[in-house]
Amino acid sequence: MNFQAVNPDFERAVRDSFSRQGLMVTLGVAIASVRPGEVVLELAARPELSQQHGFMHAGAGTAAVDSACGYAALTLAPAGHEVLTVELKNNFLRPADGEAFEAVGRVVKAGRQISYCEGELWQDSRSRLVMKFQATMFTMPAND
Amino acid sequence: MNFQAVNPDFERAVRDSFSRQGLMVTLGVAIASVRPGEVVLELAARPELSQQHGFMHAGAGTAAVDSACGYAALTLAPAGHEVLTVELKNNFLRPADGEAFEAVGRVVKAGRQISYCEGELWQDSRSRLVMKFQATMFTMPAND
Amino acid sequence: MNFQAVNPDFERAVRDSFSRQGLMVTLGVAIASVRPGEVVLELAARPELSQQHGFMHAGAGTAAVDSACGYAALTLAPAGHEVLTVELKNNFLRPADGEAFEAVGRVVKAGRQISYCEGELWQDSRSRLVMKFQATMFTMPAND
Amino acid sequence: MNFQAVNPDFERAVRDSFSRQGLMVTLGVAIASVRPGEVVLELAARPELSQQHGFMHAGAGTAAVDSACGYAALTLAPAGHEVLTVELKNNFLRPADGEAFEAVGRVVKAGRQISYCEGELWQDSRSRLVMKFQATMFTMPAND
Repeated sequence: MNFQAVNPDFERAVRDSFSRQGLMVTLGVAIASVRPGEVVLELAARPELSQQHGFMHAGAGTAAVDSACGYAALTLAPAGHEVLTVELKNNFLRPADGEAFEAVGRVVKAGRQISYCEGELWQDSRSRLVMKFQATMFTMPAND
Repeated sequence: MNFQAVNPDFERAVRDSFSRQGLMVTLGVAIASVRPGEVVLELAARPELSQQHGFMHAGAGTAAVDSACGYAALTLAPAGHEVLTVELKNNFLRPADGEAFEAVGRVVKAGRQISYCEGELWQDSRSRLVMKFQATMFTMPAND
Repeated sequence: MNFQAVNPDFERAVRDSFSRQGLMVTLGVAIASVRPGEVVLELAARPELSQQHGFMHAGAGTAAVDSACGYAALTLAPAGHEVLTVELKNNFLRPADGEAFEAVGRVVKAGRQISYCEGELWQDSRSRLVMKFQATMFTMPAND
Repeated sequence: MNFQAVNPDFERAVRDSFSRQGLMVTLGVAIASVRPGEVVLELAARPELSQQHGFMHAGAGTAAVDSACGYAALTLAPAGHEVLTVELKNNFLRPADGEAFEAVGRVVKAGRQISYCEGELWQDSRSRLVMKFQATMFTMPAND
């Protein structure tokens, strides 16, 4: 997929919104890259994010990939718009037993209002795939 | 649904496992009730869990409902077993703009290995429904 | 859920659209009931709908429940509108080894554009639940 | 993904099972190709498969992609096993207004019991993507 951003300040729009998400700070998620139609986030395993075996909790990874997909959709939105998750689906392929993770979000089909996005959670420098994620995103004017 | 627990210590099994989930502490999630086939968790809105508008982030609610459903399945498992999420689906009905939330997880169809669960996130004393959630859970011996 | 229809001819709108769905004729699906926010369809097991063991194919049941949910959303749409499925999720609880089936579709949250619906496939006079289904529906003017 | 089949007769296993699916005959679905981890099916638009606007009904495409994914999982199963769909998710990217369709099913993660598969429905010689599909498949001995 090769998308064009209609908002020349798409990266600033993503970084401004991301910086207001308290949960991303709490989970230790940071932006790795932003380009039209794709956002990559990073996070590290920590005891504060663990499930009962000490691996990263599925909910932490899900939150990161959901944000990556939402911001991927925001890169393609007009200025002054925002993106909401309508629904998400996440498939867990193996335990998240790594130390460093990348959450990738990509737009597959961009619509004026409804976009279909896919995401992944990778560990070990993208050598092991942990989650395969899909979501429907809704784009709307920010003060609607 | 009216389920019988095969493990008489089902509540202890849930509480022991829950107490080892670092993410639940980080998100401020607590157990409200445990009975065969249903677990209810509680959490409160906090800046540390927010999305960009100050409401609770979808990822925080998803993590709570996923845990509620996984532990609902664990109430029906034999002693010495554990439950993994195979896949989850979450539908966002409205922004989570409340102050206190209940995450409800219920088993709909219990199988020896595969169970189908449904969950909800409620706010305002169960007067407003925020999320409708479904998941496939897999039960296995704890040291398999 | 107790919904009010804004289109007084909602039942005619459903029946007119349903009568133009060639696939429903091919699968032998008929309308059992139409009321605001809920549509029930009926179909019977036949060799023409079978999977490899002679039971009803999951795809036939999925098609019926998808139509039931879409028409449930249409009962709440203004006159001159139509409903499209954005995405659907279907969970198979047991083989569809019955002879007669009811496909139930219900609106859970109705929006001006986006609605969240849930459905079920039942067999044996609603004594055995075969499928649990969820879908996001999009309502739009018919000639948009 | 590059998978090895453990059953040397994997293609015959797929074709034998497929030939017993009455619904595939009813929908006019045929096998285009079978290789380890991937099955492609073909079908054509017909009035008997239509929705209310004359396009192919979402249910017909969903049934075809579900079968493609199930048979993709079967290519990797031991002899004497069968595959059941645990759950499926389908996202509709645009109306299926073409004349000829390919339903592609691929295994992404193969497990001894649980496999994660992805599928697509394409039209116009794979130039337009109509559906993106995911499913959890369960492999078991045929007479279990």
